[in-house]
Parts: sequence; structure tokens; C-alpha cells
Amino acid sequence: MALIIQKYGGSSVASLELIRQVAKRAIETKNQGHQVVVVLSAMKGETDRLLAMAAEMAAGPEAREVDQLIATGEQVAVALFALACQAFGEKAKSFTGFQAGIQTDETHQKARITAIEPGRIKTELAKGRVVAVAGFQGLTPGRDISTLGRGGSDTTAVALAVALGADTCEIYTDVDGIYTTDPHICEKARKMDRISFEEMLELSSLGAKVMEIRSVEFAMNYNVNIHVRHAHQAGRGTLICEEDIEMEKKPVTGVACSKNEARITLLKVADRPGMAAKILGIVSASGIVVDMIIQNQSAEVDPASGRAHTDFSFTVPLSDYAKAMELMEGTAGEIGAERIIGTDNIAKISLVGVGMRNHAGVATQMFQTLAREGINISLISTSEIKISCVIEKKYTELAVRALHEAFGLGDLPDTEE
Amino acid sequence: MALIIQKYGGSSVASLELIRQVAKRAIETKNQGHQVVVVLSAMKGETDRLLAMAAEMAAGPEAREVDQLIATGEQVAVALFALACQAFGEKAKSFTGFQAGIQTDETHQKARITAIEPGRIKTELAKGRVVAVAGFQGLTPGRDISTLGRGGSDTTAVALAVALGADTCEIYTDVDGIYTTDPHICEKARKMDRISFEEMLELSSLGAKVMEIRSVEFAMNYNVNIHVRHAHQAGRGTLICEEDIEMEKKPVTGVACSKNEARITLLKVADRPGMAAKILGIVSASGIVVDMIIQNQSAEVDPASGRAHTDFSFTVPLSDYAKAMELMEGTAGEIGAERIIGTDNIAKISLVGVGMRNHAGVATQMFQTLAREGINISLISTSEIKISCVIEKKYTELAVRALHEAFGLGDLPDTEE
Repeated sequence: MALIIQKYGGSSVASLELIRQVAKRAIETKNQGHQVVVVLSAMKGETDRLLAMAAEMAAGPEAREVDQLIATGEQVAVALFALACQAFGEKAKSFTGFQAGIQTDETHQKARITAIEPGRIKTELAKGRVVAVAGFQGLTPGRDISTLGRGGSDTTAVALAVALGADTCEIYTDVDGIYTTDPHICEKARKMDRISFEEMLELSSLGAKVMEIRSVEFAMNYNVNIHVRHAHQAGRGTLICEEDIEMEKKPVTGVACSKNEARITLLKVADRPGMAAKILGIVSASGIVVDMIIQNQSAEVDPASGRAHTDFSFTVPLSDYAKAMELMEGTAGEIGAERIIGTDNIAKISLVGVGMRNHAGVATQMFQTLAREGINISLISTSEIKISCVIEKKYTELAVRALHEAFGLGDLPDTEE
Repeated sequence: MALIIQKYGGSSVASLELIRQVAKRAIETKNQGHQVVVVLSAMKGETDRLLAMAAEMAAGPEAREVDQLIATGEQVAVALFALACQAFGEKAKSFTGFQAGIQTDETHQKARITAIEPGRIKTELAKGRVVAVAGFQGLTPGRDISTLGRGGSDTTAVALAVALGADTCEIYTDVDGIYTTDPHICEKARKMDRISFEEMLELSSLGAKVMEIRSVEFAMNYNVNIHVRHAHQAGRGTLICEEDIEMEKKPVTGVACSKNEARITLLKVADRPGMAAKILGIVSASGIVVDMIIQNQSAEVDPASGRAHTDFSFTVPLSDYAKAMELMEGTAGEIGAERIIGTDNIAKISLVGVGMRNHAGVATQMFQTLAREGINISLISTSEIKISCVIEKKYTELAVRALHEAFGLGDLPDTEE
């Protein structure tokens, strides 16, 4: 007998009929002799409906009340799930976040789980019941309802897997696994059988939307394997697990792309200590999250002032672009930048793979591939298992397909278990 | 400074705009120097929407899960209320039943409040905040969400008034007070300035829908005055309070009517001890609530058997009529009834008034009035402050108007404070 966590996202419970199917699948798993805890998101569209009401009611609605409001979405879903089980003659019990013993900090709308007291869940499992837990929510020390932010139900599932010592954490979604790249862009994209936590982390932060990044971190920290599967299809999905020797044979695992960023460049910034901190300090003080940061050491010296200067670039989310440009323009004098230029006509293309560490040629091959397609690179940023290039937006799909081909991602047989 | 409870029903919070108006009214009250606790029902239609989903999901849906589901309705309403206050620049805090410290027994869907721990509410009031509490719900000892049944938000309001030692409990609704009879039936119906708890109890149980009966009992037991007012109009409504000397001058306070019952008569039942208990035992064992019970002592003796027999009648809710008839027909032999007849073509007309106790002539005058209109009475039932007659359904409105006129309810000046 295994203890299995099954998490279903909003699109998997978008209607009463779909909730019925999810209940059926959970019951089938139980009937195979397992204990099953199901974590559900709100029915698709419900969270947005509630958020729209909040926005209509007050400008900048108070986070604590927004949480009180939107947490009802998951509560509705788990209650309906339990009733669907009842209709199949199966005993199930639904729990809200607080009933499931999920404790968080006080950061409304993006709370972090601090502890789980799974006593009630264990009691119900021991009685042979299917347990349904409302994802995305918990209770603060002050007994207010908190939510974990978008995608937080993944985190709930992983955290419950840890707290209950579950054997598997299955994340059901509307795709059948993690792909080498977006199948909508590249028809040769291939589903992976397994991927390491680190690679998944990079892919999540680079625009692959299947898994929420915090839940991957959580799973990595506690070494909980995650099995990403299709909610309404049979068959194995992708296992997210610890890196193993087999994995390292492949230098590149996946290609990710994002069109949701804009680039800001400060030209001829005075090259003196503390300048980067000053620029980023201004941006982050206004709540904007900076992604890539690139500074070129310049040997050039301004003949007039006799001072060294450099060009400084960074990318911000598209939605914060206008605000960030305004901030920079307002402080250009203070910073000592000669000119500020920005563009939202960019895309970020990234290669990810733990094998990259031991394959020095990956970056070179990437740049060559892009050059061969006539694609100019405007920014480059690397980490141990990732290389990202910013290019002109219109080349996004071309770049993805060319890189996918160049690194043989479509053909390579994946490591089999 | 007074502590005021304001309860608003579903039709008073049916839209975001109406919730805004309710918030405005609460803030006005606070700005007059008072502490305000607002109790809200779910937005009109929401509870029905959720119940419909539950019914579609499972036949006879489990009460515990239905409560989990429908309690979200009030939670949404209070969160939106708090956000509406925020938009007016007012600090408000919303509480679910469990956050407000409302404890109930385990009887899902019609739970009773067992205790209230109002610590959090007091803390927020002391901070100068408007507090919004989700009506209709609480937490069981097992930490499950319970609901108090339809109209339960009234009970929440009264119970909070008791627990907080509130000065007033205002029940806002879509009518401007309690009337001497239904204004839709009798245009001479007059709004009362005050009515006693006992009279209100009888009126509530006789079909007047303004106040939920349990909340009136609760208010009576703890002597909390209830002020019934119109949600979106100014002006005083009706005060429900302890009986006083003034009230007794009027023999009759109001006329109520109900078309939601059916009558079943067992003819020539053997007149022996335990027969009534047996008949009602069969009915109540199947969950049907019997209203009126009438048995005539008969002097007649069956010449064949040498035994006395009697006729036995009772009324049941219209929705249980078919089931009750079936039960009686199935057990007629056992009971020893010669014949069973039933009809749903009835209405119950009732006169209510604490003054009735000292006015022997009320019953006579009632019967005379109905006779004058050619209305036949098929059943009569009385209590200390009430007389009910069952008549043919088509005479309902005629009977109400005739009795309202005969007892001068339209003209009589009400007792003024």
C-alpha cells in the first residue's frame, strides 16, 4: 500500500463532469490498494471571477480580504469532489487549508507554508477515506486565511507529500508531461520520461508553465519525486527527481522561451563602485522584479571627463516595463547615464541541462546556431545549467526550432527507468 | 457609544452596488459614534446556485460536504463588504464563522449555536474597525464547517448580540417592518411599531417570512430587542421586544396565512389509548413534521363491535403530503381506520395576539366573521395567544381581509413608544 498525493489544476476540475472524472481516477487509485490524498485548485475561471469582483470593489484591494474571498474557490472544488465520490459510493472527506492543518506565514496572497499538522488527514486515511484538500491556501498564526499565490496548489501538494511521507506526488495537468520545448512552437518537441529538479527549476523560471517554481524548490529540498501526468489520459508522464548519472550524458535537456520581458539599457553609465546597486535599488524599491542583469566592463574612457563608463542592461516583466522606464528616466541624471533606451520587442531563449556543466561547447554551439539563422543576440546570461539569450521577438519560434534541432532534442532517446 | 449589530439578508447584498450601499450604511452608523458588527447572508441566488451543484453531483448529498460548499457564499459576501469599506476609506475586517468564534453542535445544515468566543471581534472593534461576520455558519467541535439552516443569519446576528452584549440588533430586510398581515393580500395592512417576542414567534411559525423563528426564540430567551428595518430606506421599522402592558390592550395583533399545508383525516379510528401516538409515530419516524393535530372525542359506539371510535386529523407540509398519505394508507389496517381522506386544497388562517389571553370573545368573533363570508372551517387549533382555522384554499385572501377588518387592525393606532 502506497500513500499517493494527486494534485489537479483548475482546468482539470473546470466542470462538474470533469470533477466526476477526477473523483473516478482517485477512487481507482484507492481501489488498487493505496491511500489517496487529492489536492484541488479552484474550478477554472473561478479565481479570476472572484479577483475581478475584488478589483471592482476597491482599488488595490487589501490582500487579507482578497485571500478571504478567493480561498472560497478551492473550498467549493473539494466539497464538490467529495460529493462526486459519494455518488460513486465512495467515502471521501474534504478539508479547507486550515482543516488540513496547513500553517503559513502572514504574507497574504503569496504566503509560505511554515508547517503542516496532518493529524486529521491521517485519521481519515486510516478510516479508509479519500481525502480532498483545498490547494493554494492555509491559515496564518493570527487565524486569517492566506493564499500561496498563483500555482500554489502545486506547493500544497508537495508540502503534503513531505508532511505525510507520501510515496508519490502526482501533479495532474492538461498536458501529459514535461517537453523538451513548447510543442506549440516546435512539432518535434518530445515528452521527457524524467528531468532533474534543477533543470525543472530553470525551465519553470524560464517560462515553462507546467510546474510552479516554488513547489519544485520544495520538492528538491525534501527530495520528493513529482510525477507530472495528464489529468484525463492514461499513461506515464514525466518524473521530476534527483539528478542521476544517466542524465548527465545529455548536455541540453530543454529549450525554453519567454516573450514576457522587456529590456532597458543605460548607456555610458559612470563606471564607479555602487552604481549597479543604485540602479537596481531604484527598480526593486518599487516592487519590480529584475530578471537578467548585464554589465560590460568597458575600457573606454570619456576623453572629456577622463572617467571610465559602461553600458548597463537589465530585463523586467513586460507588465512593469512602462513603470521601469519612467523610473530610469526620472533618475538618469542622478545615475549619470548618458541615455536610456528600452524595448519590449525581445524574447528570451534558454537552454537548460545539468549535462551542460561538463560540456564546454554548449554556449558556442548555441551562438553558432543562432548566427546561422541570422539571429542577432542582444544579451547573454548564463548559470551553471542554463544559457539565456535575448533576441528580437520575431525570431522566437525560429530560434526554438533551430536549437531543438541542433541539440538533437527531438531524436535523442530519453533515459529510461 | 452603543454597540450595534446590523444583519443584512441576501437580497440586500445581491450585487456589488448593493454591498456598497450596505457598507455605506454601516460606516454612517459608526460615524455617529457607535461600534458596528455587520452580519451578512450570501449574495441572493448564491446559496441556491451552490445547492444546485451539490444536488447535481450526488443524490442526497452528504450534509457535511454541503455545508463546506455553501458556507463559501457568506464568506464571499463579508470579504466583498470589507473591500467596499476600504473603498470608502474605512477600515473593516471580515470573519468567517470560525474566525468569529461561533461554535455549533454537529448537526450539519441545521446546526445550533452552542457558544460564541467573541475575542477577535472585540479586539477589532476596540481598534475602531467595522467588523463583518459571515452569517449562517459556525464550526463544530470536530472543526468542521456547519450551517444553521435557512434564515440562520438572523440567528447569528441575535447570538452575536447576546455574546457581545450589544445595545441593539438590527435586522435589515427588503420590507420596512412587521405588518398586521401580508400587505400583498390586504392593502389595509399596517406596519407595527412594536410586537412582542411571543407574537412574533407565532407569526413566524404561521407563515410570516420576515424573521426566522429560531432567532426570535433566541432573542426572547436572552431578551435582546430586535429592530426590523428596510435595508435601503431610512425610517424606523418594527421593534420586537418583551411584552408590555400597553400591548395587552389589543386582543389581536396580526393575521397570518399559509397555503403550504395539506390535511389528512383518518375516519372512524378505534378510540383506544395509544392510538394517536401510533399514528404520529409512523409519520414522524419518516421525518415528516406534523403541524396541527385534532382529535374529536366521539360518544358514538359502533353497534357491530361495541367499540367507540373517533376521527383523527392532522396537517403536514405540502411537500410531504404524498408521502404521508402513502404511509397512512399502508398502515390503515394496523391503525384500525375505516377510511383515510386527504386534501391539499386548504389554507391555514391564524390570529395572533398576546391580548387574546384576556379576551374570551376572540375565537367567537373569528368564527362569526368567517361564517358571515360563507367560509366553512374544517379544523380549529388554538394556543394561548393564537387561533388557527383550516379553510378551503380559495377563500384565503377573503378570510385575511375580513379578519383584518373585523379586528380593526388597519385602524387601530399601534402602541407608541
